[in-house]
Amino acid sequence: MPLDQSWFSELCEPCGSAISLKLIRKLHEEQSPYQRLEIYETATFGHLMVIDGCVMLTQRDNFIYHEMMAHPALNAHPEPRRILIVGGGDCGTLREVLKHPEVAEAWQVDIDERVTRLAEQYFPELCASNADPRAHPRFEDGIAWVAAATAAHYDVIIIDSTDPVGPAEGLFREPFYRDCRRALGDRGILVQQSESPLLHVDLILEMRAAMQRAGFTAVQTLHFPQPTYPSGWWSATLAHVAEPPQSWRTPRLATRYYSEAVHRGALALPPYLLEAFG
Amino acid sequence: MPLDQSWFSELCEPCGSAISLKLIRKLHEEQSPYQRLEIYETATFGHLMVIDGCVMLTQRDNFIYHEMMAHPALNAHPEPRRILIVGGGDCGTLREVLKHPEVAEAWQVDIDERVTRLAEQYFPELCASNADPRAHPRFEDGIAWVAAATAAHYDVIIIDSTDPVGPAEGLFREPFYRDCRRALGDRGILVQQSESPLLHVDLILEMRAAMQRAGFTAVQTLHFPQPTYPSGWWSATLAHVAEPPQSWRTPRLATRYYSEAVHRGALALPPYLLEAFG
Repeated sequence: MPLDQSWFSELCEPCGSAISLKLIRKLHEEQSPYQRLEIYETATFGHLMVIDGCVMLTQRDNFIYHEMMAHPALNAHPEPRRILIVGGGDCGTLREVLKHPEVAEAWQVDIDERVTRLAEQYFPELCASNADPRAHPRFEDGIAWVAAATAAHYDVIIIDSTDPVGPAEGLFREPFYRDCRRALGDRGILVQQSESPLLHVDLILEMRAAMQRAGFTAVQTLHFPQPTYPSGWWSATLAHVAEPPQSWRTPRLATRYYSEAVHRGALALPPYLLEAFG
Repeated sequence: MPLDQSWFSELCEPCGSAISLKLIRKLHEEQSPYQRLEIYETATFGHLMVIDGCVMLTQRDNFIYHEMMAHPALNAHPEPRRILIVGGGDCGTLREVLKHPEVAEAWQVDIDERVTRLAEQYFPELCASNADPRAHPRFEDGIAWVAAATAAHYDVIIIDSTDPVGPAEGLFREPFYRDCRRALGDRGILVQQSESPLLHVDLILEMRAAMQRAGFTAVQTLHFPQPTYPSGWWSATLAHVAEPPQSWRTPRLATRYYSEAVHRGALALPPYLLEAFG
């Protein structure tokens, strides 16, 4: 059955699949200096932000992604004081990071200020912590930021970027990982969204290999549902400067998806992925 | 962007979401005595079976669903000898059940023989174990079958049905669960697909309550990705005649998604679901 103009569809042509959301109306559309931004009101997923035709987030299901980008890495670090988020302009990951009292400073470096301005307007709940004195939003190029960072400055670097095409492409490459490695302390952790465990196994393999070539001791991929991303199943990959811990901090956090048991479950990879990772 | 006729789309109007698969061609279409059946060749998901407009399975991702419908329940039972599958006409769950050497007989009771005939033709890999002498396919009404069953006959009953509308509706109700309870032995386990943990929390709550009213000691919901079902995230709910085990059998099984660690992870529910379940 064809879908008409009352639906927003994200077609992933190479995946041969598409996800659609029923719309009530378009709230905003603009071309920023970097990308095309659209905001919709959907019938059942709240507000929707679309960048260059791809779903960035909805109000209904972004909690899973943002919690899983922040808490596994921060809890695996014994003392996560200085955090850098590259991308993440919607401020959802920043909000999760700031739930950790150990965090002294959280830098959010997204090249496109318009994403943050639209998030403030249409996703205010994600920006609720932006006035926290520990929050440092900057609108600059993340690759240059990391290249210029003081060595061993950060405890956790979170790459919360769009897909590895266009402006975000360089964020999935070894030279960038090498800069991240240098900018991380000796127990530092890099975490990056790593696409679908069903559709993008080759990409995950390349990322893991590039992280290891860049000098990280170990990499771990974890998986979680993300209903409005292709296949509805997503992953993040952690790269550890030191050996990854067998157990981790378990602070009480106000979360809806993340818990210690969920964290452990997310690290339990299906046999076909374990085999692919070798 | 609207999707044209070269895509199959399953619209879930109440969910406000749709999932689409790029098609190469339609391979078959018929109206059986019970439902409308369609088979397509897709661009990237292999063969696709559609029943009454809903995706039943694709060759690419059905392994997750079928493994999670079979192995958690069978491994949680100390001695799963007699298994009943209600529905499951595509034979994928049957194939997983027969991987367990403890199983002496596996009955598959689906009202629609045409589903099995089409599976034999278009999903032959799922039917590879149909000649196993322990396999007993029957094309009858599952509700009547369970009502007529000898008390305490089965060790595990697997309800592998379509959604709770139309012919499958009675499979989600207390009277049916009561019959299942009676047909199960004193360590028996009922497992049923229970829709999306994001979209159908109310349905899962109703199912869990009806199972408890039907006399089961405990219910457990587990979650897993299922990319071609609405939201890409799915669940199964287990109802236990006795207290559910804290640990379970860990036989070596040739699986692609299921493992003991994945089983444990699937039982780790996000805080928002734990809260809903009370």
